[in-house]
Amino acid sequence: NLPGQPIPSAFVSDAQYNRNIPFKTSPEAVRLYRLYNHWMMRTATYFFIFLNLSLALFEEPAVYPLPFLATSVLEVLCLLVFLGRLTHFAKVTLHNVFWKDTKNICIMVAILLSLTDLAVYGVLRLYGVGSIRWSRIVRPVFLINFAESRQIRRAFRSIRNTLPEITYVFLLFTFSLLMFSLMALKLFGERNLQTAEGLPYFRNYLEIVFDLYVLVTTANSPDVMMPAFDFSSWYALFFIAFVIINTYIFMSLFLAVVYNNYKKHLKNEIRKLAYMKRRKMVEAFNLLKEEEGEQFVVREARWKQLVKLVAPDTSSSHRELLLRISDDEQKGFVDKKSFVQLADLLNIQVVTLRIRRHPLARWAPALYGSTPSRLLRRAVRHRAFVWTYDAIILINAIFIALDEESPYISYAEWVFLALYIIEILLKVYTYEPREFFGKTQFWNWFDTLIIIAALTATILNATLKSTMKYNSQQILDIVFILRVLRLIRIVDSIQRFQVIMNTLINIVPTMLTFGGLTLVVYCVFAIIGMELFHGKIQYFPANSNVPHALECGNPALKDSLFARGRYCKNNFNDFASSFIVLMELTVVNQWHDILGMWSTFPPAKLYFIAFHIVMVIIIVNIFVSFILEAFFVEYSLEKSEVETAIEQKIQELGMGVQEDELQQEQLLDNMESAEHELEGDGGTKPQSKGLVFKIASKRYRTVDALLQRMFEAEIPLEDEGPSFEEILNLSPSSAVPRSLSSESAA
Amino acid sequence: NLPGQPIPSAFVSDAQYNRNIPFKTSPEAVRLYRLYNHWMMRTATYFFIFLNLSLALFEEPAVYPLPFLATSVLEVLCLLVFLGRLTHFAKVTLHNVFWKDTKNICIMVAILLSLTDLAVYGVLRLYGVGSIRWSRIVRPVFLINFAESRQIRRAFRSIRNTLPEITYVFLLFTFSLLMFSLMALKLFGERNLQTAEGLPYFRNYLEIVFDLYVLVTTANSPDVMMPAFDFSSWYALFFIAFVIINTYIFMSLFLAVVYNNYKKHLKNEIRKLAYMKRRKMVEAFNLLKEEEGEQFVVREARWKQLVKLVAPDTSSSHRELLLRISDDEQKGFVDKKSFVQLADLLNIQVVTLRIRRHPLARWAPALYGSTPSRLLRRAVRHRAFVWTYDAIILINAIFIALDEESPYISYAEWVFLALYIIEILLKVYTYEPREFFGKTQFWNWFDTLIIIAALTATILNATLKSTMKYNSQQILDIVFILRVLRLIRIVDSIQRFQVIMNTLINIVPTMLTFGGLTLVVYCVFAIIGMELFHGKIQYFPANSNVPHALECGNPALKDSLFARGRYCKNNFNDFASSFIVLMELTVVNQWHDILGMWSTFPPAKLYFIAFHIVMVIIIVNIFVSFILEAFFVEYSLEKSEVETAIEQKIQELGMGVQEDELQQEQLLDNMESAEHELEGDGGTKPQSKGLVFKIASKRYRTVDALLQRMFEAEIPLEDEGPSFEEILNLSPSSAVPRSLSSESAA
Repeated sequence: NLPGQPIPSAFVSDAQYNRNIPFKTSPEAVRLYRLYNHWMMRTATYFFIFLNLSLALFEEPAVYPLPFLATSVLEVLCLLVFLGRLTHFAKVTLHNVFWKDTKNICIMVAILLSLTDLAVYGVLRLYGVGSIRWSRIVRPVFLINFAESRQIRRAFRSIRNTLPEITYVFLLFTFSLLMFSLMALKLFGERNLQTAEGLPYFRNYLEIVFDLYVLVTTANSPDVMMPAFDFSSWYALFFIAFVIINTYIFMSLFLAVVYNNYKKHLKNEIRKLAYMKRRKMVEAFNLLKEEEGEQFVVREARWKQLVKLVAPDTSSSHRELLLRISDDEQKGFVDKKSFVQLADLLNIQVVTLRIRRHPLARWAPALYGSTPSRLLRRAVRHRAFVWTYDAIILINAIFIALDEESPYISYAEWVFLALYIIEILLKVYTYEPREFFGKTQFWNWFDTLIIIAALTATILNATLKSTMKYNSQQILDIVFILRVLRLIRIVDSIQRFQVIMNTLINIVPTMLTFGGLTLVVYCVFAIIGMELFHGKIQYFPANSNVPHALECGNPALKDSLFARGRYCKNNFNDFASSFIVLMELTVVNQWHDILGMWSTFPPAKLYFIAFHIVMVIIIVNIFVSFILEAFFVEYSLEKSEVETAIEQKIQELGMGVQEDELQQEQLLDNMESAEHELEGDGGTKPQSKGLVFKIASKRYRTVDALLQRMFEAEIPLEDEGPSFEEILNLSPSSAVPRSLSSESAA
Repeated sequence: NLPGQPIPSAFVSDAQYNRNIPFKTSPEAVRLYRLYNHWMMRTATYFFIFLNLSLALFEEPAVYPLPFLATSVLEVLCLLVFLGRLTHFAKVTLHNVFWKDTKNICIMVAILLSLTDLAVYGVLRLYGVGSIRWSRIVRPVFLINFAESRQIRRAFRSIRNTLPEITYVFLLFTFSLLMFSLMALKLFGERNLQTAEGLPYFRNYLEIVFDLYVLVTTANSPDVMMPAFDFSSWYALFFIAFVIINTYIFMSLFLAVVYNNYKKHLKNEIRKLAYMKRRKMVEAFNLLKEEEGEQFVVREARWKQLVKLVAPDTSSSHRELLLRISDDEQKGFVDKKSFVQLADLLNIQVVTLRIRRHPLARWAPALYGSTPSRLLRRAVRHRAFVWTYDAIILINAIFIALDEESPYISYAEWVFLALYIIEILLKVYTYEPREFFGKTQFWNWFDTLIIIAALTATILNATLKSTMKYNSQQILDIVFILRVLRLIRIVDSIQRFQVIMNTLINIVPTMLTFGGLTLVVYCVFAIIGMELFHGKIQYFPANSNVPHALECGNPALKDSLFARGRYCKNNFNDFASSFIVLMELTVVNQWHDILGMWSTFPPAKLYFIAFHIVMVIIIVNIFVSFILEAFFVEYSLEKSEVETAIEQKIQELGMGVQEDELQQEQLLDNMESAEHELEGDGGTKPQSKGLVFKIASKRYRTVDALLQRMFEAEIPLEDEGPSFEEILNLSPSSAVPRSLSSESAA
């Protein structure tokens, strides 16, 4: 199998190609590399990363307290795993590359810091000296820097690159804020006005700055204006001008700057990847090429070996299809141009459709083929069947909203459950089961799982109720949620909503990146918050008779907005509570009340403002940019060149499916992922040997893949791209192709 | 003067060309048309439009009450003016075009409705029967439909076109809201929880839907969660999921849809304009052309006549420059290709720079040229002069922030005022005064006006104080504001901020469009709000002894959040108050409290939600889209083709200015708008006869002009564009050029 030649690195794995790192290519190294990238190893790494992060739940101040010994043993274990993972990585990477990579250094420093801090803390503890576990804030470093989280690193890089521009806008914004505060001080400072709480209004310059900063977030919107407005209606103009300039214009400006940079850097990253791929493919071609006439080519046998090696999951029919596309004129070899496209071809999800016979049709053909059975199947396939069930869902929604007390309604629940189960059974009877539960059948899976879970939970609840006279609230809650979730399915039966839903489903994976980003920021701030504010506020249940229970155990809070709003549970007493407070701060509303609480404690305001800037001004804006971009790509992207080429070939070979040829439902339900091997059990369509191809729907393409393909169209095929070093050092400004100036303004 | 031929319509005026309407072309009609477009007529129309709108201030319920007779006479007067304006317009427009235009019909219907309603109301009033002046909500129609407000109409068209897509997203959003509400009902409905005010929590489905809708706007953020969160921490997950899906994802989706459509329709409109211009220019060429060899051309004499006619303000040197560009090889005629560019050439602001001698140098050359004078002028031109004044501004800022009571500080104010006056005098001494106050010298004008106003107000205040022992608060307030505004200048001396400031200044004109849009929406909602909620809440000053003064005269409000926040002045009792309440609703925060007030009155919730959807979801998003787009255009647009051609020509003719040739300050201060005629007073530069050209800085280009030029680059020169009818009917989908698919994803 390609004797003597190392596997061209472009093919080792998608993960590797994405990482842009030149690897050792000895067989031993390749084996180690495969192990490194094995899904079990990766899952284990993630497990330990999250275990390490969640240690904060068990350490003082704990949600579920564990002895210090237990948490420190766990932490040491995690650190050892990280060290092992890093060593493993060092073994498969070239030496100089490994030591040049900042992220490896970061990990090592983080491990060292954590161990030192742990040891110091442990020793001090033994001698009864209290100290701070400050190293806990470096834990998110592992989440950022382990190679698997490329997306998070990309987001961080994007943030870092945006910082200079954001800073200028921020300075200007601060200037505007200071100006307005100065005006406010002069206008209202000597009027002896009072706030609704009877406090002096706009007397102190720094407090004015803070109040107006809060007004930018709109959190204290009419309140901060009311005293001045009551004094004279004209003063409302001051606040209107302030809100227009600072809230509307400056906040949009932040979004514009973040979005602009996001686009620029995304394009740069994608361009790097595209160039890298092109380069690797050319390298591979040069390794495998043989002379044929005047040109160099790769012969068919070699090509097939390569595809088998690189994508062992591809079915032989799929492989044949790819070959026919690459070797268009069936000359027995593949030329450079077609060869370079191979990676793209493999990336296109081609769905092998098969008109397979239902298992029942094989086991009991007479029964399955009988007239009632056929009528039944026809009925299930009819549009009216869908409509009926949509109607049932609507009626179900009304029943859910009605009172549970009446026995009729709780019986009705059983009826609905039965109806849904019948629906699934009928569908499985009509459509081939393996196709019904195909990989791309999101809604079938969704339905079935929800129904099974609801059935289990309902039965469990009924059993508990009848045998032990006990109504488990948790199970009931789950049943309620499942019942409502069932109703979502109705959305997918309306065409217009499908488009939006598809985009939403498409962007879920990348949204997880933002989940990671948010997690990192939250972890850091939660740990700092716990150190600063731990124990300052206590929560007592409503019926508690502890003194000052209503004032959160703090008599100073009497009559404060904080106590009046019963916010006592919004505290930094443990990791979970801190997360929820940070979530509330992200949503922004009332954040000054939550903050107001700590006002006796000077660093509090800085902490809250820092969190607001990092989370709301930067990360939420990047999130919005990302959603905007994802939608624009979805709205505008046509099928790419390679894709159309494959489709054309499929049609040429007579293996295509006309959309109208089969009923829409039938088509969908006959779809199957490309994994299954051709079984040759003879279908109903002679020309296709029961086998048709179709390009998988857009639904399952990722935004990343879309962007990458989009940019590739811009590189001419002959262009092998800049050298490896150049690619890694591509700057965002050079990465913007000349045509961007008109594009981004489109 | 081009005898016998009507003036080519492309040239009649920019306003006409923008309006795309074929006009009558008889000399009488042209005269009438000029009158119609005269700035006095247009200003008068605007005056009456705003007079008509502001009538709401004087009608019942009034801010400044006027008798019914007075307001109705004023209204009839306004309507007559509108009718006159419309008749005038009908006279200059072709008959069939006039009657086909919806906006003319709209105006007529609005006039008719207003008159009928006024008459009916007047008669009923005579007989003592009360009725509603419902026709007041059609008043904004005049603002929208009078031809001068093309931008507002465009914005409205853009909204109308966006509606279908917004609706689908909105339906999906509503579905999600209903689902979550159903879940909330099931999860919390039977827990007997209570809100912080002791009210039942999440019992009634419709109330849950409303509460969760408010949560989408984040206005009741932690409050709505607290009872469930206090009951069990796990329930926080429900609210977190809700906020992520509905607030972050759906609200971004609204922005994405609005922005996408905004871009699409903007491009369409711009394309129409560009085609229209091209067509008109070709028509004009065909009217003026003469045969020359094998091609048709326009001869130099005719061309010059035309330019003089079309742009009478252009200086003869500027005209010469344009001719040299159009007739590149000096053949004595202009060919079609160059002719068609004429409109673009005229649109480029070419600044005629002149090294002019200071008037003092002419009147007192010995003094002005003496060594101390020269040293002084050199000092003023030095960078350190700017730095000194920046330092003075900073010190001034500190003094402003300090307490006014101390006499030293109020003396300091006089010192600062004197320093600023000296600065201006020094600058006028150093730079040529007419150049210092040139049209494009925004900051010079700003400084001077602020200082003069501050000086006047301060002297006025001091006079009043010393003579009448009376301290006018209004004047003091103005003085305070002016003092602070003075500090803004420091921003312009930092290069990085200049770029952002330029963009901000650039987008001001278009922001006025949004001002108009907002005005229309506010007017309609304010008038409806006054009819619905007038008098339900009363405001009493703090020291009033009216019963229930603290509860806004409504005992039912005792202990409500509304009364506790002292929101009584947020009412719909007059037009001005309504505007301020609507502003607060636009900012969103606490809108449920403001609303909570009306909860006994069923249509209130609908009114508030409708306002939220129209204003926040649609108009604010369009505003944000507009700012995003404006910034992207600014960030990315290079100089256009025509502009570079002119620059090249200027250089070729040896009339260019090298940026380094003069000091930056000197260059800027020698700049002058192109209006002034060549005076031939002989400058210091022999090769330019004291005259140099420079393309005006980007600072004063409008976004519209940028977009238009950007799109024009995409039309090939030979393309005369589709026919007139086709242009008017261009649909947004056909308007998107093929390359957009990749562009908008860039």
